Amino acid sequence: MAARGVLVVLSGPSGAGKGTVSQALLQAEPNLTLSVSATTRPPRSGETDGVSYYFVSREKFSMMIDGDEFLEWAGVYGDFYGTPRLPVEEALAQGKDVLLEIDVQGGLQVKNKFPEAVLIFLLPPSWPELAARLTGRGSEPPEEVQKRLQWAKRELQSLPLYDYAVINDRVEKAVEQIRAVITAEKCRTERFSDFKI
Amino acid sequence: MAARGVLVVLSGPSGAGKGTVSQALLQAEPNLTLSVSATTRPPRSGETDGVSYYFVSREKFSMMIDGDEFLEWAGVYGDFYGTPRLPVEEALAQGKDVLLEIDVQGGLQVKNKFPEAVLIFLLPPSWPELAARLTGRGSEPPEEVQKRLQWAKRELQSLPLYDYAVINDRVEKAVEQIRAVITAEKCRTERFSDFKI
Repeated sequence: MAARGVLVVLSGPSGAGKGTVSQALLQAEPNLTLSVSATTRPPRSGETDGVSYYFVSREKFSMMIDGDEFLEWAGVYGDFYGTPRLPVEEALAQGKDVLLEIDVQGGLQVKNKFPEAVLIFLLPPSWPELAARLTGRGSEPPEEVQKRLQWAKRELQSLPLYDYAVINDRVEKAVEQIRAVITAEKCRTERFSDFKI
Repeated sequence: MAARGVLVVLSGPSGAGKGTVSQALLQAEPNLTLSVSATTRPPRSGETDGVSYYFVSREKFSMMIDGDEFLEWAGVYGDFYGTPRLPVEEALAQGKDVLLEIDVQGGLQVKNKFPEAVLIFLLPPSWPELAARLTGRGSEPPEEVQKRLQWAKRELQSLPLYDYAVINDRVEKAVEQIRAVITAEKCRTERFSDFKI
């Protein structure tokens, strides 16, 4: 039987580069699979149910909350998003590692429900760099950039509640550090309680 | 200023391959330095003071114990061996990682005095393999092999008190896992308490 996989939660402020790092990490780690969220928002063109998201009704989402079927969930602008527990459990039991790319509040919810989760905080190299990245996108008006910077400051206050921090100054280095964390977590003696020589 | 180094304790039963793995690890990690023990036994030919060991008198060793100058020490067949704290502290402060290759009792003493130490237990791939390795050396009489196997069983009972376990089925794999542990430990959020963006 394969050894149980590791649940990796990757969080960090908008502009830290979570998406880029996640994609590079999934490329580098064939045993790592991205968790698919459930949402009540309608599918956009090109989105496939069970791949982009599990698209569910508000009634179904509500029932899933009541049944404690989420590792974490949140409401955003009137829609709901959550991480269903069952597919994560199944993947881990098969020995797959699972990646959740969620915000800090979600990460802390997961740790609460699932203490074995490994929480990694992705940090921008510096404050000016974060501001430059958010401004450089050009897609956000200046007030929105300011709001995200303020939000980043708030999120950073939860850094000590995370297990690991990785500074994203170079994507390859950040990916290498996250891979090292996964390897190291598999070497924890807690995972050797059945070990007999 | 360089970030503080990591103190790595590598232990494991006789025959697990600590020496081979340590040497390969030191080759692969230029930032890692092997701690030099102090001993009361006289130097053998070819041994240099401060390189192989710090050779000290019994009086000096005794004073060092009284002054709490050891991270761990033990008496073996009438001679004393110990890890002086000061050189380790200096190396860590300079950002060097330090490797201690010591037995399980010593490792647990270190953890007690120095909770930030990272304890890694090197495991043989299997019991028959351990027996084969100990017998295969040909240098030990069968009673001595049996004694070491019994001792290995006792040491293994302390596995849960260690932080990590690495199975030495292939030296390169064991080295890679230990390197991942060092990288991961440097990403622990405890080490980011001064982080400001």
